[in-house]
Amino acid sequence: MRAVDLIQKKKEGQKHTREEIYSLVDGYMKGEIEDYQMSAWLMAVCFQGLDKDETAWLTQAFVDSGEVLDFSHISDFVADKHSTGGVGDKVTIVLIPLLASLGVTCAKLSGRGLGYTGGTVDKLESIPGFKCEMSKDEFMSQIKEINAAISSQSPNLTPADGKIYALRDVSATVDNKSLICASVVSKKIASGANSIVLDVKYGSGAFIKTKEEAQELASLMIETGALLNRKISAIITSMEQPLGKNIGNSLEIIESIEFLKGNYEKDLYDVTLEIVAKTLIAGGLCKTKQEAKEKMDESIKSGSALEMLKKIIACQGGNPDVINDYSLFHPAKNSVEIKAEQNGYISNLDALEIAHACKLLGAGRDKKTDPIDYSAGCILCKKTGDAVQKGETVLTLYHNDIKEEKLKEAKEHAGNSFLITNTKVTPPVLIYGV
Amino acid sequence: MRAVDLIQKKKEGQKHTREEIYSLVDGYMKGEIEDYQMSAWLMAVCFQGLDKDETAWLTQAFVDSGEVLDFSHISDFVADKHSTGGVGDKVTIVLIPLLASLGVTCAKLSGRGLGYTGGTVDKLESIPGFKCEMSKDEFMSQIKEINAAISSQSPNLTPADGKIYALRDVSATVDNKSLICASVVSKKIASGANSIVLDVKYGSGAFIKTKEEAQELASLMIETGALLNRKISAIITSMEQPLGKNIGNSLEIIESIEFLKGNYEKDLYDVTLEIVAKTLIAGGLCKTKQEAKEKMDESIKSGSALEMLKKIIACQGGNPDVINDYSLFHPAKNSVEIKAEQNGYISNLDALEIAHACKLLGAGRDKKTDPIDYSAGCILCKKTGDAVQKGETVLTLYHNDIKEEKLKEAKEHAGNSFLITNTKVTPPVLIYGV
Repeated sequence: MRAVDLIQKKKEGQKHTREEIYSLVDGYMKGEIEDYQMSAWLMAVCFQGLDKDETAWLTQAFVDSGEVLDFSHISDFVADKHSTGGVGDKVTIVLIPLLASLGVTCAKLSGRGLGYTGGTVDKLESIPGFKCEMSKDEFMSQIKEINAAISSQSPNLTPADGKIYALRDVSATVDNKSLICASVVSKKIASGANSIVLDVKYGSGAFIKTKEEAQELASLMIETGALLNRKISAIITSMEQPLGKNIGNSLEIIESIEFLKGNYEKDLYDVTLEIVAKTLIAGGLCKTKQEAKEKMDESIKSGSALEMLKKIIACQGGNPDVINDYSLFHPAKNSVEIKAEQNGYISNLDALEIAHACKLLGAGRDKKTDPIDYSAGCILCKKTGDAVQKGETVLTLYHNDIKEEKLKEAKEHAGNSFLITNTKVTPPVLIYGV
Repeated sequence: MRAVDLIQKKKEGQKHTREEIYSLVDGYMKGEIEDYQMSAWLMAVCFQGLDKDETAWLTQAFVDSGEVLDFSHISDFVADKHSTGGVGDKVTIVLIPLLASLGVTCAKLSGRGLGYTGGTVDKLESIPGFKCEMSKDEFMSQIKEINAAISSQSPNLTPADGKIYALRDVSATVDNKSLICASVVSKKIASGANSIVLDVKYGSGAFIKTKEEAQELASLMIETGALLNRKISAIITSMEQPLGKNIGNSLEIIESIEFLKGNYEKDLYDVTLEIVAKTLIAGGLCKTKQEAKEKMDESIKSGSALEMLKKIIACQGGNPDVINDYSLFHPAKNSVEIKAEQNGYISNLDALEIAHACKLLGAGRDKKTDPIDYSAGCILCKKTGDAVQKGETVLTLYHNDIKEEKLKEAKEHAGNSFLITNTKVTPPVLIYGV
């Protein structure tokens, strides 16, 4: 079938065969199907959708387009997690040291960020010297040595997803759940993990806006995993307000270090625990969430998780002294406090507005080649439900001499990010479903 | 606004501004918007549509992307027509000589055919020596000299439509009425005519399948013309069965010559008269359809229309002797008669099946660079409603030693193209609306 006929078929809402999905992906990788045909097909998919079979075939075609990692000679149980992304989401940075300190082999592949704030790779690279670009051999041998590694995506894994993702990004075809599912699940399958926990986020600070869509996406990913013989579990979490209190690359690393020192925000703790528990139970390392909580608390209390983070930093070329000396992050030169103009309670804290502000301050990028200011960002002093006095600081912005008009705009977004009401508001439910 | 945001906007079903439409078209022509972005936008348009304003802006943006012909120094009234295309449609070839012989200046730009059978340019180029590729100066000076010229599309007119049409063709985004309208109407506006008559065809042999869609497209084109200050009129005609009796490039030229000699099929005559009447009335050259009919009949009877065709052929490098000697067309070597297997009446004659057969015989092409066999095609001996005896020839196929399996397939399509029933069937209404 010619490319144009495959596009027409999806445009008309017909179901592709397995062979058609493979011929699209393979043809595209071989250059027989052009970018402009793939983007038209992707747009048709955004309108007509892919069913469960088509989604699984697309996922497998992505996996088959490249290498698949095999850890069977290192460990029987390899864990991975994936978050669909949100503002202030530093779960990976606390989770991997925690799990590894509890005996779980962690082979984590992460991405850079496009959009409002950096991705996990960007955050880690704010640690002086830290490198996420590792060869497959470096990745494998570090995991063998210390039980954990966090690497940026290898170009040899799911290259078809890489090529198609880049195209989706510039053709307004990112937000289809089957395309998201195939992209996420194929990477996780190719990275060789036995247990995969997905954190599907919804709300103003996530690209999925409603609980229902998050549920649909989570179900689809779990079913796709099942169709392809991988055990995937998922939690659905709210991203109405940022997770934790620091937003911005090195600021989030600092919050993660504090977390592992026992100084944590409840929301970040709760999401992390949920994933720790799911993983430990899947690996047969404990039976209940309560048991997982005790193990996690002990790992924090004993300092073994922090020690593991130190090892990861050192192994990946970073300066482990940052753990005790935050000045090594070269903090931002300027700060601006955004204050409450009345007494009351924070009734809403819009993650998207805060993300906007952080991006303007220099914490995010539009194009892959844009530079990031690692120290830019913001720290929340209040979260939804907190009482606040007139004149009290709600959040503080950090930047390095950005242009006056950008700062003005960032301050506007920050000022618009929260609402103060007279009556106390219950914070939004954080963990909606597991 | 970035290209990706413009695509997103249309994907969400929002209305573009005039500036946005222009920035898409201009950006695409400048290479700032990539093919893969334009094709994604076109696919989004196929799902979300363009409203009347957006369609008019797109049409004008196409016009503004190139040159606009100006005949004001040659004639006050310049006519043009356009058919959305159908099987056996040779109206242009009889219409232009007729109108020119009646004093109407005809500046006709035509296209080559993609799909089942050739376009007007291909048909004319089946006349030995005939050339449709003319410079603007050649086109203008021939019109000044003999009042008519038929040229293939100039690359200087509506280049944006040319570039986008090529992309639509390979990205399954051809069949949207706003995109069709902008493509057709922009070309007609750029070609400088004062009076434009559109023949919108529907039915099995047209790419528009229903009367309702044809009406919608006709209304949209008329309204777009009005928004852009051009007088466009339209007729809606049926293409359930082929127009006239010959299908195939030189076969259609021969039928056109016969028409101008006074030997015509009623359906071809009726459609031609309708357009002649509309044009003459628009130009103030007559008042009623009856008056137009008398003029047209007189032009045929006196031989002046045939004389005009001869002039056009001679001016454009063709051999005018073809008019009296059809052997100069190098007729096909082989013919196959498809016969009736029972007595009765032709109750259906499927233009699409016949077109399929003709293409297999060599009369059409898939790619612009594919060769065409000018003499291949078919002649209908019967049309819908005609009585037929068992063993009588319904149609004859013409070809030049094509491969056995292709011939077999062509014969199957030809055999499937008609249905014989016991009761007489009224032929389909030809002219549905004007």
